[in-house]
Amino acid sequence: MKFKVLGSGAGIPSRTRNTQSFVLDVVEEINQYFLIDASEALQHRILNTTIRPSKIKHVFITHLHGDHIFGLPGFLSSRAHQGGEGIPLVIYGPPGLKEWIEVTFRISSSHLNYPIRFVEVVHDGEYEVEGFTVKSRLLDHAVDSFMYAFIEPEKLGALDSAKLKDIGIMPGPIYKEIKKSQTFQHEGETYATADFLSPPVEGRKVAVHGDTRIIDRPDYLELLDGADLIVHEATYLEGEKEKAHQYFHSEIDDVLNNLSRISYGRLLLVHISNRYDAEMLESVEEKMGDRAVIAHDYLEITIPRDSR
Amino acid sequence: MKFKVLGSGAGIPSRTRNTQSFVLDVVEEINQYFLIDASEALQHRILNTTIRPSKIKHVFITHLHGDHIFGLPGFLSSRAHQGGEGIPLVIYGPPGLKEWIEVTFRISSSHLNYPIRFVEVVHDGEYEVEGFTVKSRLLDHAVDSFMYAFIEPEKLGALDSAKLKDIGIMPGPIYKEIKKSQTFQHEGETYATADFLSPPVEGRKVAVHGDTRIIDRPDYLELLDGADLIVHEATYLEGEKEKAHQYFHSEIDDVLNNLSRISYGRLLLVHISNRYDAEMLESVEEKMGDRAVIAHDYLEITIPRDSR
Repeated sequence: MKFKVLGSGAGIPSRTRNTQSFVLDVVEEINQYFLIDASEALQHRILNTTIRPSKIKHVFITHLHGDHIFGLPGFLSSRAHQGGEGIPLVIYGPPGLKEWIEVTFRISSSHLNYPIRFVEVVHDGEYEVEGFTVKSRLLDHAVDSFMYAFIEPEKLGALDSAKLKDIGIMPGPIYKEIKKSQTFQHEGETYATADFLSPPVEGRKVAVHGDTRIIDRPDYLELLDGADLIVHEATYLEGEKEKAHQYFHSEIDDVLNNLSRISYGRLLLVHISNRYDAEMLESVEEKMGDRAVIAHDYLEITIPRDSR
Repeated sequence: MKFKVLGSGAGIPSRTRNTQSFVLDVVEEINQYFLIDASEALQHRILNTTIRPSKIKHVFITHLHGDHIFGLPGFLSSRAHQGGEGIPLVIYGPPGLKEWIEVTFRISSSHLNYPIRFVEVVHDGEYEVEGFTVKSRLLDHAVDSFMYAFIEPEKLGALDSAKLKDIGIMPGPIYKEIKKSQTFQHEGETYATADFLSPPVEGRKVAVHGDTRIIDRPDYLELLDGADLIVHEATYLEGEKEKAHQYFHSEIDDVLNNLSRISYGRLLLVHISNRYDAEMLESVEEKMGDRAVIAHDYLEITIPRDSR
C-alpha cells in the first residue's frame, strides 16, 4: 500500500505544485487505485506515472472547490480511451457532483463508454469498497468538506505449524484447507482453527482530509486514532492562525498539537500555499521531526503494516 | 503580432502534446492577447510563458468538445487571482458555454471578481473586438464548430515629408497633428491630408479553425483568401481520408489541396493525433514545403505584414 501525491498545492497551480490530487495505491492488495480529489491536469499527471486509469474504479472527492475537481471531466474522458471501456466507476462526493458531471458531458456532447455511479457521501458515512471500509466525516470548511478514512480488512493470522505437528498433522496441501476452515477434524477429534492461528493482523488505516479548520470532536479523533497515515492540509505554515481560521483552513502548529492527542504512524501535510519557498519549507520540516512530512508533487509514501 | 501554440494535440493529451489552446499575441498592437480555445491545463501552460492572464480580455471558443474547453473554469478562476480583478472578460463561443460555466461555478461555490459577458457566435458573424474585426464561420463537425478570422484594422500610410516640405511645412510636432487630421491649412490654403500620405497599410488576417471536415464553400474560401496565417486541423496525416470524413476531421493532403485555390501566407497544421511519431511528422513536413508547418506545443510564429 502506497500513498502517491499528484498535486500538493493550494488554490491555484504553480510551476512546482499542482492543485490537489492523490492516489491510494492498493495494487498489491486488490490491483486497484483509489483516487482522492481530481484537480485540473490530473490526466496529465497520470501520464508521468505508471498508473493505469482503468485500474481506478473508485474516486473520492473531498469537496467541490475548483482546485479539487476541475480535472474530473478530463480524467473521465481519457479513461474511456485508456482501457476503461466497460469498467464501471463509482464517484463518492458531496451533492452537486452528479449534476455538474452530467451538465458538463451534455454541453460537450460527450458520452462515456462505461457506467458511472454517484454516491453522495454524508457525515458518519460508512462504505464497503472492494473489501475496504471507507468512513466519511464532515470537516469544517466554507463548503461541505469530508475526511475519508480507508480501513484495510483484517488479515488472518499465520498458521502455527509447530502446534499442528504436535497433534500429528504434517505440512502439506492440508494446511491451506485448514486455514480456510472454521474447524477441522483429525483422528476423530474436532479442532477450532482459531486455536492454531496467530492473532489476526489488523488492517492499515489511512485518513485523507479535505480542506478544513482544526477539528477536535471526540468522534473524529477516535476515528483518526491508530491511523498509519494521516493526510492533513496545512495551508498556513507560518503562525497565521487567525487567517487560517478566517479562511476555513489549518495552521501547521495547530495540526501538530491537535494530533498529538492521538496515536498515529505518519503525518503528511498537503495543500501547501505557493507563497512558501523551498528554504522556508525546509526550516519547517526541520522543526517538525521525523513523523511529519510536507508533501511535494510525485511524493510516494509506502505504508507498512504496524507503522504506528 | 504572434501566434502561440499552447496545445497542438487532438482528443487527449500526451506527454508531448497538450490538447488545443492558442494565443494570438497582439501585445505590440493593443497590449492584449486573444485566447482561442481553452483545453485542460491551459493555466498550467500559461505559467511556462510570459503571458499575463489579466491581458486576456477576449476568449474565442471554436466548439464545445472537452479537449477544447475543459481548461476554461480553471483559467477563469486563476485569472481572478492573477491581476484580473475588475478587468472584464468576453467569451465568444457556441450556445451552451454560459450554462456550463454558470453551473460549474455554482457547484464549486466560486465567485469571480470580474464580469464575464458571453457572446453566442453565429455563422457569418462579425464582431468588433478592440479595433479588430473578428468574423465567424460555421465549419463541418459533429457539433457546431467555428472558424474565427481575426482582421487587424488598416493602418494609416506614412506621411510624405518631401511633399510637405515642398509646400513649405518643415518637420516638427505639426506633422503629428497633420497625420491625425482629415484636412489642414497652410498659408491660407486648405489641403487634404490623404494627398500627403502613402496608401494605407492593410491589416493582417489570421484565420483559426475549430475541428472540421474540409470546407469548399465560396464564402469560406473568400474569407480565407489573403490570410497571413491559416490555422487548420490535420487530425489525419497519413491518407486516411475516409476515416477523416467519418469522424468529421480533415486529412492533410485534402487541406493542402483545398487551400491551394487561394492565396495565403503560412499554414499551421494543428490538432495532431498522438498516433504519429517524430519521424513520421518530419517526413510529412519535408513533402509539404516551406509555407506549411506542423504545430508543436509552445511553437511561436511571428506574423509579419504582407507575408502573403
